Amino acid sequence: MTIETICSRIDHDSSKMIDGLRRLVRQPSVSAQGMGLRECADLLMEMMVGAGLKAELLEVDGAPSFIYGEMKTSKLGEKRTVIFYNHYDVQPPEPLELWSSDPFAAEIRGGKMFGRGVSDNKADIVSRINLVRIFEECEELPCNVKFLMEGEEEIGSTHLPTLIERDLDRFRSDACIWESGGLDEKDRPEITLGMKGMLYVELEAQVASHDTHSSLAAVVGNPAWRLVWALSAIKGEDERIKVPGWYDDVKEFTAEELRALEEKPFEEELIKEDLGLKEFLLHMSGLELKKALAGGPTATICGLVSGYSGSGSKTVLPSVASAKLDFRLLPEQNPGALLEKLKSYLIGQGYGDIEVKPLTLEKAARTSLKEAIVHDAAEAAMQTFGKKAVISISSAGTGPMNLFVDKLKTPSICIGCTHAFERSHAPDENQRLDVFIQGTKWVARTLDLFGKGS
Amino acid sequence: MTIETICSRIDHDSSKMIDGLRRLVRQPSVSAQGMGLRECADLLMEMMVGAGLKAELLEVDGAPSFIYGEMKTSKLGEKRTVIFYNHYDVQPPEPLELWSSDPFAAEIRGGKMFGRGVSDNKADIVSRINLVRIFEECEELPCNVKFLMEGEEEIGSTHLPTLIERDLDRFRSDACIWESGGLDEKDRPEITLGMKGMLYVELEAQVASHDTHSSLAAVVGNPAWRLVWALSAIKGEDERIKVPGWYDDVKEFTAEELRALEEKPFEEELIKEDLGLKEFLLHMSGLELKKALAGGPTATICGLVSGYSGSGSKTVLPSVASAKLDFRLLPEQNPGALLEKLKSYLIGQGYGDIEVKPLTLEKAARTSLKEAIVHDAAEAAMQTFGKKAVISISSAGTGPMNLFVDKLKTPSICIGCTHAFERSHAPDENQRLDVFIQGTKWVARTLDLFGKGS
Repeated sequence: MTIETICSRIDHDSSKMIDGLRRLVRQPSVSAQGMGLRECADLLMEMMVGAGLKAELLEVDGAPSFIYGEMKTSKLGEKRTVIFYNHYDVQPPEPLELWSSDPFAAEIRGGKMFGRGVSDNKADIVSRINLVRIFEECEELPCNVKFLMEGEEEIGSTHLPTLIERDLDRFRSDACIWESGGLDEKDRPEITLGMKGMLYVELEAQVASHDTHSSLAAVVGNPAWRLVWALSAIKGEDERIKVPGWYDDVKEFTAEELRALEEKPFEEELIKEDLGLKEFLLHMSGLELKKALAGGPTATICGLVSGYSGSGSKTVLPSVASAKLDFRLLPEQNPGALLEKLKSYLIGQGYGDIEVKPLTLEKAARTSLKEAIVHDAAEAAMQTFGKKAVISISSAGTGPMNLFVDKLKTPSICIGCTHAFERSHAPDENQRLDVFIQGTKWVARTLDLFGKGS
Repeated sequence: MTIETICSRIDHDSSKMIDGLRRLVRQPSVSAQGMGLRECADLLMEMMVGAGLKAELLEVDGAPSFIYGEMKTSKLGEKRTVIFYNHYDVQPPEPLELWSSDPFAAEIRGGKMFGRGVSDNKADIVSRINLVRIFEECEELPCNVKFLMEGEEEIGSTHLPTLIERDLDRFRSDACIWESGGLDEKDRPEITLGMKGMLYVELEAQVASHDTHSSLAAVVGNPAWRLVWALSAIKGEDERIKVPGWYDDVKEFTAEELRALEEKPFEEELIKEDLGLKEFLLHMSGLELKKALAGGPTATICGLVSGYSGSGSKTVLPSVASAKLDFRLLPEQNPGALLEKLKSYLIGQGYGDIEVKPLTLEKAARTSLKEAIVHDAAEAAMQTFGKKAVISISSAGTGPMNLFVDKLKTPSICIGCTHAFERSHAPDENQRLDVFIQGTKWVARTLDLFGKGS
């Protein structure tokens, strides 16, 4: 059997794989709302066992079940081991009215499947389970594989550190293939070597004990104004975070990183068109944009709510106002220390009345360009797509990759089935079905090369 | 028949009146949401005709039906005419989860009826229809009465000017008894002679065409930040509105007005306790509070919404953010001119991307202390409650009273059935049933005295 046989078999099984993906998307699993996680984990156990994997649920108090699976290669010799990291939870589907079809219907239109979580990251899950099945049915995996899936990545992977720290040996591997890699805006395969960290907090202001008539605003404080002023104190129009010391641990890019950034294409026009943008933030272009995405700390208002937001006018003085804020961090930045700085700063600016509730604290991570898995994934990309892979030193996104890179000393890369216009976290999230199948071959070839290097 | 007979009859009929109020509250009539207005108008026609009034619906294109009613006194001689102004629409009931009972169940607990609109202002409506019925059943009204009710007061009385201007003679009267007067925090009868004006606008910011992953916030603008910064440019922590020229037409209080303000009690501790406040805005106390309520222009955020506001964290970059803003105005301030000033200011400050949508423009109004109806209402208050009436030169609230005071030259006062802790516009809005009955007597005695003065 050659890897070409495996790839032919992936093509042959594509309908079966698409059916599997549809089934998984139709099972909602919204961690932020505690919806469907148990059912989704059960479904995945069934799919993994069906593929021949030895699978089990691992429990940590307070967390949705983790799913662990493994299969050893039948090839002779001591083989390398690859661990797949995935999450089966998805973002909330809201706002529902902006979807073209039901977010859990998994409708297929124009070669894409639409659904919440379809690309982030149920397609990767179904792809990886199937490629193990196909290797197994052809009787030889090129290396040992492990699966680790969690059900709370979208709400900050709170319990993953506990799970990993209590059984480091189980999870330590020679390489980790992360969720969420795939094709960029011009269908170039992209290998991502790192992720930003995150501090996600909720700010809440309260004045009166209950809402009242807005005529009283002449003499009663308004928490919405308090929140607006506090937010303005955190970041101004120059996008600079005003909290003292916020940038202290941010390192400049190395020459090697800068070269990788320069080489990496960034399709400004395509992205502007997709998002309907007149221009990028602060009139940025070229290398500035790439530096900001890979290495710029951000402060983002993800949600804002106070008072009445229905149709028409309501003359109410709200009693409560809250904001959700997402700060993206770089490898040396410590989310816990920054949380304390943020709290002290708000108190110092006179906003001690505003409660700061931490929801997510995650460190950033980066894998070295020199790792064997990086080389093999690039070679496999060339074989699969006939194109040179783009190397991204860091995603603009966040995940608990630092547990693998730093705690398990397991180099981690993102490759897989996603594509640039997938609308993850937004209405009409979708998965291109061609990339779903091609991405599966890419990962299969990467395992093949990585196994040979053992 | 004396007025004492009428008052006894009001006591005798109290259960019947409470039943009527319950029936009216159970008919939702939310103008902001277009809910139940037709049904509520039909119910009111039935109640008015049942009380012996000649009633009809008046239509203006695009408006909920207006209800007009009248009854002439059978007493000899040319009698004065009083017009009752009321509105049958109510505020939206949201947030529903903060109500102790269904907002349209009209539940009675502890001598109060709870429901959306019960005190603002369905109690006044039922009170006035019943007192006409009772006068009529005793065969003599002390003066002519007219009723005018609209169904869009809570969304800015948009079509009332059209109705009034096309038939000034029909509505012009010797005095107008407005909605919403009643007892203050210490159960003193309060006569209110004016209302603030209002400019209510919605600000909306949009950047991308759709929501996206918040990792892109490193390079894509965020409408929530745009909105926060624009709002901060409108008002700072000193509560001063920064729009140039905003205060140009604001007059200082006259000596007479100041005396009335000084005499008017303001129950700081009771109000702080009811609202759970540590202190009033800007540490105000005493006369400052009374001046702010009667004569302070305000800028109030009534609603704020962007992105995700459900439970947990969602890492989304919103594409749209909006705020509802309520500016209260004084007699000389022109809402249309101020709207233009606000728009120009935002453009000048670099916020031309933020759309300003006007929802309500209403001028302020004040009636002179010297009018006969003011004197008669004060005398009637003493007869009913055995207490000197408090004169309030202006409510902190808003209504289309300027159409009556300025356009119809009809002096207008607020007296009736409300009480200070009614929670109008907020969850658990309620009507004290004792005040409902006593307030009805107060208005009956006022009509009696005003009729005698003819």
